[in-house]
Amino acid sequence: MTVKTIYDLIHTVAPFDTQMEGDNSGLLVGSSSQEVSKVLFALDITEPVIDEASAIGAELIVTHHPLMFNAIRSVTDETYEGRLIRRLVRENISFIAAHTNLDQAVGGINDTLAALCGLVEVSGEGFFRSGFLPEPMTVRAFADLLEENLETTVRIMAPENRIIRRIGLCSGGGSDEWHAAAEAGCDAYVSGEIKHHHALAMADAGIAALECGHFATEEPGLAALAEALQNSLNHVECNVRVYVSAVSAYAFSRHP
Amino acid sequence: MTVKTIYDLIHTVAPFDTQMEGDNSGLLVGSSSQEVSKVLFALDITEPVIDEASAIGAELIVTHHPLMFNAIRSVTDETYEGRLIRRLVRENISFIAAHTNLDQAVGGINDTLAALCGLVEVSGEGFFRSGFLPEPMTVRAFADLLEENLETTVRIMAPENRIIRRIGLCSGGGSDEWHAAAEAGCDAYVSGEIKHHHALAMADAGIAALECGHFATEEPGLAALAEALQNSLNHVECNVRVYVSAVSAYAFSRHP
Amino acid sequence: MTVKTIYDLIHTVAPFDTQMEGDNSGLLVGSSSQEVSKVLFALDITEPVIDEASAIGAELIVTHHPLMFNAIRSVTDETYEGRLIRRLVRENISFIAAHTNLDQAVGGINDTLAALCGLVEVSGEGFFRSGFLPEPMTVRAFADLLEENLETTVRIMAPENRIIRRIGLCSGGGSDEWHAAAEAGCDAYVSGEIKHHHALAMADAGIAALECGHFATEEPGLAALAEALQNSLNHVECNVRVYVSAVSAYAFSRHP
Amino acid sequence: MTVKTIYDLIHTVAPFDTQMEGDNSGLLVGSSSQEVSKVLFALDITEPVIDEASAIGAELIVTHHPLMFNAIRSVTDETYEGRLIRRLVRENISFIAAHTNLDQAVGGINDTLAALCGLVEVSGEGFFRSGFLPEPMTVRAFADLLEENLETTVRIMAPENRIIRRIGLCSGGGSDEWHAAAEAGCDAYVSGEIKHHHALAMADAGIAALECGHFATEEPGLAALAEALQNSLNHVECNVRVYVSAVSAYAFSRHP
Amino acid sequence: MTVKTIYDLIHTVAPFDTQMEGDNSGLLVGSSSQEVSKVLFALDITEPVIDEASAIGAELIVTHHPLMFNAIRSVTDETYEGRLIRRLVRENISFIAAHTNLDQAVGGINDTLAALCGLVEVSGEGFFRSGFLPEPMTVRAFADLLEENLETTVRIMAPENRIIRRIGLCSGGGSDEWHAAAEAGCDAYVSGEIKHHHALAMADAGIAALECGHFATEEPGLAALAEALQNSLNHVECNVRVYVSAVSAYAFSRHP
Amino acid sequence: MTVKTIYDLIHTVAPFDTQMEGDNSGLLVGSSSQEVSKVLFALDITEPVIDEASAIGAELIVTHHPLMFNAIRSVTDETYEGRLIRRLVRENISFIAAHTNLDQAVGGINDTLAALCGLVEVSGEGFFRSGFLPEPMTVRAFADLLEENLETTVRIMAPENRIIRRIGLCSGGGSDEWHAAAEAGCDAYVSGEIKHHHALAMADAGIAALECGHFATEEPGLAALAEALQNSLNHVECNVRVYVSAVSAYAFSRHP
Repeated sequence: MTVKTIYDLIHTVAPFDTQMEGDNSGLLVGSSSQEVSKVLFALDITEPVIDEASAIGAELIVTHHPLMFNAIRSVTDETYEGRLIRRLVRENISFIAAHTNLDQAVGGINDTLAALCGLVEVSGEGFFRSGFLPEPMTVRAFADLLEENLETTVRIMAPENRIIRRIGLCSGGGSDEWHAAAEAGCDAYVSGEIKHHHALAMADAGIAALECGHFATEEPGLAALAEALQNSLNHVECNVRVYVSAVSAYAFSRHP
Repeated sequence: MTVKTIYDLIHTVAPFDTQMEGDNSGLLVGSSSQEVSKVLFALDITEPVIDEASAIGAELIVTHHPLMFNAIRSVTDETYEGRLIRRLVRENISFIAAHTNLDQAVGGINDTLAALCGLVEVSGEGFFRSGFLPEPMTVRAFADLLEENLETTVRIMAPENRIIRRIGLCSGGGSDEWHAAAEAGCDAYVSGEIKHHHALAMADAGIAALECGHFATEEPGLAALAEALQNSLNHVECNVRVYVSAVSAYAFSRHP
Repeated sequence: MTVKTIYDLIHTVAPFDTQMEGDNSGLLVGSSSQEVSKVLFALDITEPVIDEASAIGAELIVTHHPLMFNAIRSVTDETYEGRLIRRLVRENISFIAAHTNLDQAVGGINDTLAALCGLVEVSGEGFFRSGFLPEPMTVRAFADLLEENLETTVRIMAPENRIIRRIGLCSGGGSDEWHAAAEAGCDAYVSGEIKHHHALAMADAGIAALECGHFATEEPGLAALAEALQNSLNHVECNVRVYVSAVSAYAFSRHP
Repeated sequence: MTVKTIYDLIHTVAPFDTQMEGDNSGLLVGSSSQEVSKVLFALDITEPVIDEASAIGAELIVTHHPLMFNAIRSVTDETYEGRLIRRLVRENISFIAAHTNLDQAVGGINDTLAALCGLVEVSGEGFFRSGFLPEPMTVRAFADLLEENLETTVRIMAPENRIIRRIGLCSGGGSDEWHAAAEAGCDAYVSGEIKHHHALAMADAGIAALECGHFATEEPGLAALAEALQNSLNHVECNVRVYVSAVSAYAFSRHP
Repeated sequence: MTVKTIYDLIHTVAPFDTQMEGDNSGLLVGSSSQEVSKVLFALDITEPVIDEASAIGAELIVTHHPLMFNAIRSVTDETYEGRLIRRLVRENISFIAAHTNLDQAVGGINDTLAALCGLVEVSGEGFFRSGFLPEPMTVRAFADLLEENLETTVRIMAPENRIIRRIGLCSGGGSDEWHAAAEAGCDAYVSGEIKHHHALAMADAGIAALECGHFATEEPGLAALAEALQNSLNHVECNVRVYVSAVSAYAFSRHP
Repeated sequence: MTVKTIYDLIHTVAPFDTQMEGDNSGLLVGSSSQEVSKVLFALDITEPVIDEASAIGAELIVTHHPLMFNAIRSVTDETYEGRLIRRLVRENISFIAAHTNLDQAVGGINDTLAALCGLVEVSGEGFFRSGFLPEPMTVRAFADLLEENLETTVRIMAPENRIIRRIGLCSGGGSDEWHAAAEAGCDAYVSGEIKHHHALAMADAGIAALECGHFATEEPGLAALAEALQNSLNHVECNVRVYVSAVSAYAFSRHP
């Protein structure tokens, strides 16, 4: 099985041509024709993640965030990205990023986040989802639920005893999408990063903002993609194995 | 004593002409010639803060964040800013913002934050400060200190048991300034908001990132400005009184 | 009856969404829900016009030219617009501008001007109208007619004894629209302001240019709108009264 | 004597390199080496002015306003400028424009206008001049003086009985320069064209606006340049003769 | 027969409205209504070509490359284009350019080039054509054929003994179109100018690049247009005569 | 000896900070700290040149033309540059480009070209050089000399029997620099690529244009740099060996 085949399987779940203008999702390093026996999924491509891929013998890494988001003019040890690209090439590991196409996909990052928020009657499009808590609860109680389900620390930007029911959300740096939450009549809004002036505007609009961290709101969606891929692969009875990175979010690299 | 006199006193501490291009610090609503007996300081201008000013009879509000950061073409009840401006005009309250000029000022927002981090030998310019902890400590221990001194929740983006000594910082949405921390050879970096890709780059560079929240890193600097102003006023034996807002950061407004 | 209701009545005559890109017609100051018993119409919002509104107790002013054509970043006594906005808010007067939507409207500013020019068989779209004089006359005779009907001084940019019949026109600063007059085969062109190089091009094309002043070509259209509104209001048997400003065009303000 | 020599003489009075960015003053049609015995000065280059030059046998026309202000991509009979350029080339007439360099020159268009306004103690730079009337007078009386001296119709945008003394001015389409008049503390402002919103702002600031027409404010300055050139030429005892156009401002062309 | 009639005949072969954005094809100097008895065709408008037109008494020159590709702001003897335009006007010669419309036309410049390359089964659109050599041959043999048919020197950028069959081409400065040749599966690519980095990319892609000179690849197409026009004119039995310039490509002008 | 040391030696000859804005000279692939025993110089980085470097065991390639002139967002086998970069990384070869800094350097590409043209009294700066032939000769004779010295085919764009003496030149795609040749009063101009409209302008100005090919005008300068480097290395008695590529300019790559 080649990198191209796995690229195509991801494409059926999260079509690469749905990525936002300016994004850099796709095959970024390596070769479509490379043979693959093991694939490692991680939120980000970092030195520790490449260490992990090497240790398990993965020929392909799939992450959410791309490299070369800003285009580059050299590939040397002088830059962070240069070092990562050089290691991937030298250790013969291909690299695919599924970024804004996965954010928006059915069953993608935001749908996974909605499930972990315990929402029912989920709707929405693009990067935004909204749904209902099964029962009304306080902001504080909902924050506790998020801390447990997402394994994170929640920053509450609202009165804690406010009762909420309709929840809007957008994973990662999704602060801007609060407008969609306002239009949808939400009581609360969940995102990975929430800018101060958005939090103020939500306070004015009576929407409770809950900031859960970039990694915590996105990593589960990537694990879900890994699982979906493993299932697809099992159906075709090939023996490619899929791994989810066990490296923590901001593990320090070996670099000085 | 007029609004103009107080504007001039703030100017001596944090000259308005040092504000960044595109910022909107200065007298934003009201009249230079208005007589003032009470001044209310707050991080942000919100409905609850205007309620507070009205309750105490303040003729002037001074905040960190401006209104009309994006220029406006109407002043009506249809918009958040329109409602705030209309209340200020109707209730005859002038409004001054001291934003990026106060961030950079000697004794301003970032110097106050450095003091609350417990740093010694503080140096730096512009929006960045660095200094040393009196004794090396773990990231976890430093985070505990910050949670206590800044009354906030800290999000740690690094291995918790790492030993750190040299600390860089920038208040508010100061994520970009981590480059200055890298150049200064810091072990850790403190800011109000830290973007995910900056946190990854810091992990690669061996710098521990600690995100403390926008409000928590800036509000103390505003209280310090209030105190400095009260001291100046006491020297001239006038009877203007200075207040610091007691409204919590994201208090919900009375608006629907 | 609220500001919103009157806004909607104006909208039926001169739909606000037909305004040109970059224009600022609409409700610019105040509140849609404000109760209105008296409305003052004027070409421009100025200090003397606000004086007049206050004197008669109008809760709403409707003008042709907007405020905040260039977006603003403060609302203080330091600026001309800031002073006007502050007075409107303090004296609780809402403010609507009907600018390029009224220029283009059927029965709007330009149709009113065509009628005052004595034209028959009037046609045209957008900002341009053309029609015929009932009888051919000299440029000089037509200028005399305009001076009388528009109560203005006409600047003639053509040989005075030329005979003309087909007239093109565009109110206010409508110099550019002379091209439409050329395409329509007009003998003469009437506007509020005519630029020198346009006048030369018209001379070359054999079109007589007659400059009548900005105020004189537009004010009658606003009075016509006031009358139309009063008629509408009479039909619904409400007791809102409509006034047309009696202040002359460039009355000096009370300001210094 | 060649075109180049006359160009150089004009350059000593109104240096061409002082023209504004984007202007097109200079030798625009013809040849530097052409021999010249007669020069015709006019405000604008038009068909009647070229007729006049041909009639008197002038080899050079000097005007204030340039051709090709917007750069061109053809020289055909389809366009106004194409026709003028073709006639100049065919009839072997060179063409020089002295536009914003002459506006600003010492003794140039604006200084000539100041003299015709009867001002004393004239100062100013760039396009703006200010000075004093020998005695205070009413706006109406000053307008009468202007109508006589400039042979024009004045449009008064102010109360007519206001007393004025300090006068600011800028010839032609100089409406924007009213800010300089405000800074100089002027009571009145004279220009060729005055935009409506500038007139309103002047009314608010207590400055009387007097619009005198583009041609009337500029043509005398060109005649003064012609006279200065004739004097220079007389000194060198050459027999080149200088004419000032007798064609009226907006004479119709022979074109259709 | 007028310039307009001949313009219309060219338009039926190479419609002027198919020219690329930014091109300047059309009637560039002269008059549509001019009577024409002789037309001179040339690749470029130069002093020697105007000499030739004058010598034969042509009232119209038709070329491939336009004048005023960059718009101009003067028509004087100081510039190359100014001198050419002035001569055309003075000698009463109209001037039409048929540039990118002729490149793309059926039977236009590129179709003529394809025929001279000896290609069969020619296809393509826009500026690109491809076809087959009747028999496979070496690069060297094909270059010899081109040197003979196009009367030029060919620069070969490939191994000379390579066997080729499918040929892509674009006349003039058509280096960029090699991508179309790659997509069409061509073995070789012919153009007037080939940039070094394109030649390298073709070498990598296994495409032999043959650079034949700008003039040599385009002049035959213009001669073909002349012939087509003469045929059209013969049909209508008018006595307008068509000439093709005999001046060599880079003949020196009479200018210094 | 490291890549960094060789970079520094090249920098003393052709300082990298003198490169034009937008150029991409410098260390583009690899690592400053890599040990080097053999260096290969070539005009361009291509597959055959990398084959050659591998064959001789060179750890560093130095070329004139950079990679990533347009910044890239992937490093895969899908693109020409991706394949080259991947080979360099996998085969552990560093890559330095010395482009516009070498063009301008004293003793750089253009000075080498001037010497091969046989010029004396050479002067010039930036990308332009001019000098004199020892004896006047015809364009044809000079072209023969160039064909021999540069091992190329020359395209002559001028009358062949014209006598010339003062020669201007700019290597590679230096067509634009002909203006410098005109200012310097040259009789002829030599470059690698000459655009058609520049050739026409030179014909008008009486300058003979001789186009010699991009590779032929630049390759000798790179060989000269290799020699200078070998001399520097010999002085420090290190045993690094310098090679000049023997691969012809447009050798086909192994790529399909």
